[in-house]
Amino acid sequence: MTRKLRMGMIGGGLDGFIGGVHRIAAFIDGKIDFVCGALSVDPEKATESGKALFLQPDRIYTDYVDMIQKEAQLPEGVRMDFVSIVTPNFLHFGPAKLALESGFDVVVDKPMTISVAEAKELQDIIQRTGRTLALTHTYSGYPMVKQAKAMVKEGHFGKIRKIVVEYPQGWLARLTEKELSSGAEWRSDPTKSGKSLVMGDIGTHAAHLAEYVSGLRITDLCADLTTFVEGRSMDDDGSVLLRFTEGAKGVLMASQISAGEENAVRIRIYGEKGGLEWANEDPNNLIIKMLDQPRQIYRTGNAYAAPYTLSSFATYNTRIPSGHPEGLLEAFANIYRNFAETVSAKREGQTPTDEQLDFPNVHDGVRGMQFIDTVVQSHASNEKWTKFEG
Amino acid sequence: MTRKLRMGMIGGGLDGFIGGVHRIAAFIDGKIDFVCGALSVDPEKATESGKALFLQPDRIYTDYVDMIQKEAQLPEGVRMDFVSIVTPNFLHFGPAKLALESGFDVVVDKPMTISVAEAKELQDIIQRTGRTLALTHTYSGYPMVKQAKAMVKEGHFGKIRKIVVEYPQGWLARLTEKELSSGAEWRSDPTKSGKSLVMGDIGTHAAHLAEYVSGLRITDLCADLTTFVEGRSMDDDGSVLLRFTEGAKGVLMASQISAGEENAVRIRIYGEKGGLEWANEDPNNLIIKMLDQPRQIYRTGNAYAAPYTLSSFATYNTRIPSGHPEGLLEAFANIYRNFAETVSAKREGQTPTDEQLDFPNVHDGVRGMQFIDTVVQSHASNEKWTKFEG
Amino acid sequence: MTRKLRMGMIGGGLDGFIGGVHRIAAFIDGKIDFVCGALSVDPEKATESGKALFLQPDRIYTDYVDMIQKEAQLPEGVRMDFVSIVTPNFLHFGPAKLALESGFDVVVDKPMTISVAEAKELQDIIQRTGRTLALTHTYSGYPMVKQAKAMVKEGHFGKIRKIVVEYPQGWLARLTEKELSSGAEWRSDPTKSGKSLVMGDIGTHAAHLAEYVSGLRITDLCADLTTFVEGRSMDDDGSVLLRFTEGAKGVLMASQISAGEENAVRIRIYGEKGGLEWANEDPNNLIIKMLDQPRQIYRTGNAYAAPYTLSSFATYNTRIPSGHPEGLLEAFANIYRNFAETVSAKREGQTPTDEQLDFPNVHDGVRGMQFIDTVVQSHASNEKWTKFEG
Amino acid sequence: MTRKLRMGMIGGGLDGFIGGVHRIAAFIDGKIDFVCGALSVDPEKATESGKALFLQPDRIYTDYVDMIQKEAQLPEGVRMDFVSIVTPNFLHFGPAKLALESGFDVVVDKPMTISVAEAKELQDIIQRTGRTLALTHTYSGYPMVKQAKAMVKEGHFGKIRKIVVEYPQGWLARLTEKELSSGAEWRSDPTKSGKSLVMGDIGTHAAHLAEYVSGLRITDLCADLTTFVEGRSMDDDGSVLLRFTEGAKGVLMASQISAGEENAVRIRIYGEKGGLEWANEDPNNLIIKMLDQPRQIYRTGNAYAAPYTLSSFATYNTRIPSGHPEGLLEAFANIYRNFAETVSAKREGQTPTDEQLDFPNVHDGVRGMQFIDTVVQSHASNEKWTKFEG
Repeated sequence: MTRKLRMGMIGGGLDGFIGGVHRIAAFIDGKIDFVCGALSVDPEKATESGKALFLQPDRIYTDYVDMIQKEAQLPEGVRMDFVSIVTPNFLHFGPAKLALESGFDVVVDKPMTISVAEAKELQDIIQRTGRTLALTHTYSGYPMVKQAKAMVKEGHFGKIRKIVVEYPQGWLARLTEKELSSGAEWRSDPTKSGKSLVMGDIGTHAAHLAEYVSGLRITDLCADLTTFVEGRSMDDDGSVLLRFTEGAKGVLMASQISAGEENAVRIRIYGEKGGLEWANEDPNNLIIKMLDQPRQIYRTGNAYAAPYTLSSFATYNTRIPSGHPEGLLEAFANIYRNFAETVSAKREGQTPTDEQLDFPNVHDGVRGMQFIDTVVQSHASNEKWTKFEG
Repeated sequence: MTRKLRMGMIGGGLDGFIGGVHRIAAFIDGKIDFVCGALSVDPEKATESGKALFLQPDRIYTDYVDMIQKEAQLPEGVRMDFVSIVTPNFLHFGPAKLALESGFDVVVDKPMTISVAEAKELQDIIQRTGRTLALTHTYSGYPMVKQAKAMVKEGHFGKIRKIVVEYPQGWLARLTEKELSSGAEWRSDPTKSGKSLVMGDIGTHAAHLAEYVSGLRITDLCADLTTFVEGRSMDDDGSVLLRFTEGAKGVLMASQISAGEENAVRIRIYGEKGGLEWANEDPNNLIIKMLDQPRQIYRTGNAYAAPYTLSSFATYNTRIPSGHPEGLLEAFANIYRNFAETVSAKREGQTPTDEQLDFPNVHDGVRGMQFIDTVVQSHASNEKWTKFEG
Repeated sequence: MTRKLRMGMIGGGLDGFIGGVHRIAAFIDGKIDFVCGALSVDPEKATESGKALFLQPDRIYTDYVDMIQKEAQLPEGVRMDFVSIVTPNFLHFGPAKLALESGFDVVVDKPMTISVAEAKELQDIIQRTGRTLALTHTYSGYPMVKQAKAMVKEGHFGKIRKIVVEYPQGWLARLTEKELSSGAEWRSDPTKSGKSLVMGDIGTHAAHLAEYVSGLRITDLCADLTTFVEGRSMDDDGSVLLRFTEGAKGVLMASQISAGEENAVRIRIYGEKGGLEWANEDPNNLIIKMLDQPRQIYRTGNAYAAPYTLSSFATYNTRIPSGHPEGLLEAFANIYRNFAETVSAKREGQTPTDEQLDFPNVHDGVRGMQFIDTVVQSHASNEKWTKFEG
Repeated sequence: MTRKLRMGMIGGGLDGFIGGVHRIAAFIDGKIDFVCGALSVDPEKATESGKALFLQPDRIYTDYVDMIQKEAQLPEGVRMDFVSIVTPNFLHFGPAKLALESGFDVVVDKPMTISVAEAKELQDIIQRTGRTLALTHTYSGYPMVKQAKAMVKEGHFGKIRKIVVEYPQGWLARLTEKELSSGAEWRSDPTKSGKSLVMGDIGTHAAHLAEYVSGLRITDLCADLTTFVEGRSMDDDGSVLLRFTEGAKGVLMASQISAGEENAVRIRIYGEKGGLEWANEDPNNLIIKMLDQPRQIYRTGNAYAAPYTLSSFATYNTRIPSGHPEGLLEAFANIYRNFAETVSAKREGQTPTDEQLDFPNVHDGVRGMQFIDTVVQSHASNEKWTKFEG
């Protein structure tokens, strides 16, 4: 990169949580400047938040359309390069479409939209414009997840047979949406959240992780969704039997009523020769279990000798030496950093490397929306298996 | 107990593995004498094994019918009190029936039989004779599993919503049945093993554990069974969506092709107020996750003060002080010890305590066979849900 | 073994704890019969305990001298083969000496005696009589401790540089000796316990473990002992800097006031090429950390392929398949089993194998007493280093 | 803060490692702009690094004196506010002194200087000028370390008795200083590193952590230092017995030859009522072990209800929700953020809060240098105890 990229943000006022995560992820490597924002639909909050975040007054906007149009008219060396969209789900599509069509690249929180139709339209725009879109499926940003993917790809475990992926949380074990402005309110409103609460909010993370690491794709599924908490208008728990390409099978569990759990994302994959295990709450350990061998724990940031050498994808996404834990913010930042380098390379007429291109994109976004649709359809059906049309 | 009980054993020659486990479990507390055995269908092996195990030559039998009949004719102070049946599944029913009808109590390895019909016949005999049968669902013998059950029962977690129980193993990731006399051979022969390999061998353990700890019963299920290893004649992996009484839901996974796993039994239960987690490979820790509280780890053998006092069921089944790990053999021995004390009490005209009666019995055996049947039926069906008729 | 060995027990009445552990350890493998006992100095308790443990009335003794003399006069096929001595420390020497001199072999709890002089006298008797004595330094009985020793010995870690061994407990964080008949009373009485409470009770375990695994011997030490609990008459905490043969160094910590700890024995050894870590509270995992390689976890009971094959010492002392945890009782039982096989072999004119001979013996007992002496001497000295005269 | 602070950096060229850590720590919260640097003593490296880090060409300096003098002459709204000093130890004092005396605040890597005299001079300058200095003892920046400190302070554990703090690493198990430009070279040169390699590089971290969490101060110590690796000119391992104020005792271990260890900082503190345990490699768990209670695990970012409510110091230093791991970079960033807020508050005439003031300062730096001195003095002495004159 010959210069820092300039970021505008849509959503992410100081009363929310996810905006701050995106900002940290953008700031951490010193390669992105935060130059403008339409940080809230509430003009007062937008202004206050912009000031508190040290934006120049004339680049604090109260409306995303206004921001995109005005920024587009600023001189090239000044105007933002991309927008980061951190609004509730139903407000992803509009800003993303307008930004892409106005010549800006886009980072958008997951799920990408609230319908497959919207997702496909974004995909079409990308195809047409050649712009870049990053989707923040955080867990794929971890070095040890990338190491897992690399080892599966190189055949370390042989043919993959079984995938178990789970995302238990407990924060919706109570009717949180009435209690506090926690983000639970809009999430449990289908017009704002999409067809499934649990699958939109966390199930797509799990599905993406399973496909990302295994390199396989879900072909059929059988889902059971539940609303456990009385008074809630959407599902808060779901279990899904999975069938994958190449004969693999699996189970996906996503739950927001697993009281006492925090963000216990975990994936286990078993092949003919061995298995792997990775967990978000202990993200610097990748547990490898080969037949006839002691268990191995690959740890972030190590300069192992061959044949244990960590994959270039793992090392490219690691910032500090082994034993010094990196966490979710660094995984998140890897998506931003790789996106920024890809955008820079493309703008400077270069070809991004495979490592730079390694972030979730618009196709992952489409697939996520299809996953939600298929799960909801399966849940409503008495047939055991529903085809995943992807 | 005013005297030791005398045990005969059917199966359990020195070439197998499970007989040794049963013997250790019987010996450990010094309350059971091993007096006779029909240890193998091969007379030579039976004799050799009997000698090596220090049986008196005249009480080494080569045939279980012979043993039961001869022992029945010995004087009361000499003859065996109960038999322990550790043969392959298809050889459980015959010896159990004959023993019970000959006035002996019975310990039998799981699954209890190879069909629901056999299981129900044993249930009838028990009902008729008043004899005692213990089924070695080992995991329910652990103190921290008993603590978990007690806490669920006392309402510590509120109404139960979600149960995830799993038993991944890797030992059948290869076609072990052709390679060595590992017990894989008869296990993968449906005439000897029953309708399902994976569910008979380990799935019933998981199902029993889920019902034992939660106090709920499975009402409906949706199963997907797979044979992953080429050349194997029975299933080696299964995933099941569960519905329980009182509106709880769950997932059961049993797998013998999870390469690299050993015996990673694990159960997680979530209620309205919190959740619990227990794992066989770390059995002295019971992880309690309550809403709004730090996680707690209840550990075997502690004299916690109120309100943390360990349940009488946990302490009754613990032999040594905290920090000194007890393992599977002690859990197994708890079944034997409680069975022996129950049998002694009944024979001496006393009422066994609730703690003594706390071991898997013939009803659990029937339920296990029904579970296998229902899973197999569900797997064959295109309907999503199959009723568990129990 | 062509027949079971017959055990008598001195101490171990039902009001104590350690007797039960010894009995389980003796019973578990079905190779030892418990035939007589002088279970308490209180005749009533001795009798009650003997009955409850199903001893024949005429072999319940109330005095160890009486027991040893009477048993010696019983016919060879009846009389006990060995005694297990589980009395307070000051009552180890007398029974051990008399038993050995009367032709019986001996198992004795640690520390072997209450003085170096006593210990050396037992060593002399052993030398003279050829009898066998086992000392129950439990932790050396674990399969993964034996694996660690084997790997050090074969040079897996290169030259050893650093050894950290620790045994923190919390049970004496309060003045327990006044509160209950917990064994704290005699332990904190120097006439019954020996020169150091913390070093006698647990420090010798740690010292033995360090020397057992490393194959090195302590040559110099620098100790700081403390009595933290007001009203206690002996030390309850000690930290020791160590120097070993071959230039290795180390630290030993033994503490009974580490409130909240249970029996957190842990050893770490570092050589030129890598390190190992093992902990009593997670005893089936041996963590291996080699330079330039992922961490490895060797687990009990696995049939690893070369070059990972578990040592014969590890496998010989394992009873059940991997993933099924074994615990302290099995480690303890390994000492009994190996002792019994050694005694049998010697009595039958055979040479015990190296695996059978692998239990702590009278020389370890002498060394333990010397360790206590040296620590106490160092504590009293202003010199930094005190020579370990062993 | 009404505006971002402007940072200059001394040292930290792209060929090193620690500069990058400081920059991430400074950038992560978007409150600090990186405006100038003298990034290397090699002018070419300085220039290249400055460009790569997007500094304006006229603020890329090749000499720290030049930088400080020129920046001091820039207008108030432009010139840097503070310098971050990330040079080898022997180059801390000069830049720090000049910066402070030129009106700039200072962040400096540890150990603060290479002698007690230098450290005390900085302390005097601070006293005289009222400037602010932050010392990057990273581990005290973790939320769960702050929670531990808060719980000790509020008396949760009663009077503190025992402190065990350790920092084992393995990266100097080989003669790394000859092999690569790893920072091992200057670290093992006493003229650049100070009196002790192991104590300067990591021992001071451990000593600071022990005093920070316990609130106690070391009064006496007994040290053993070793150079294990042939050809190395400084110590690479040290073990120290400690005595603290109020009668507490402890052990400190710092080792760079613990082959296979990464950065396994760990602290355990035991009081009359219970103990705590925290480890850098699992930093979001604070293990609490109270007498008579199940273990508790306090985890970063939780909104526990009373009486478990996390301390304001823990929550103030947490960025994301529970279950999403934060790591070393966030701990490091907490020092920068708190320093920046303190500096801003003081410059704006406000009183910083206790939370903002919670970062290691010049007094900690002096104490660190005294610790190194005392350890080296003790090592050279035959007396058991050496007074810590602090």
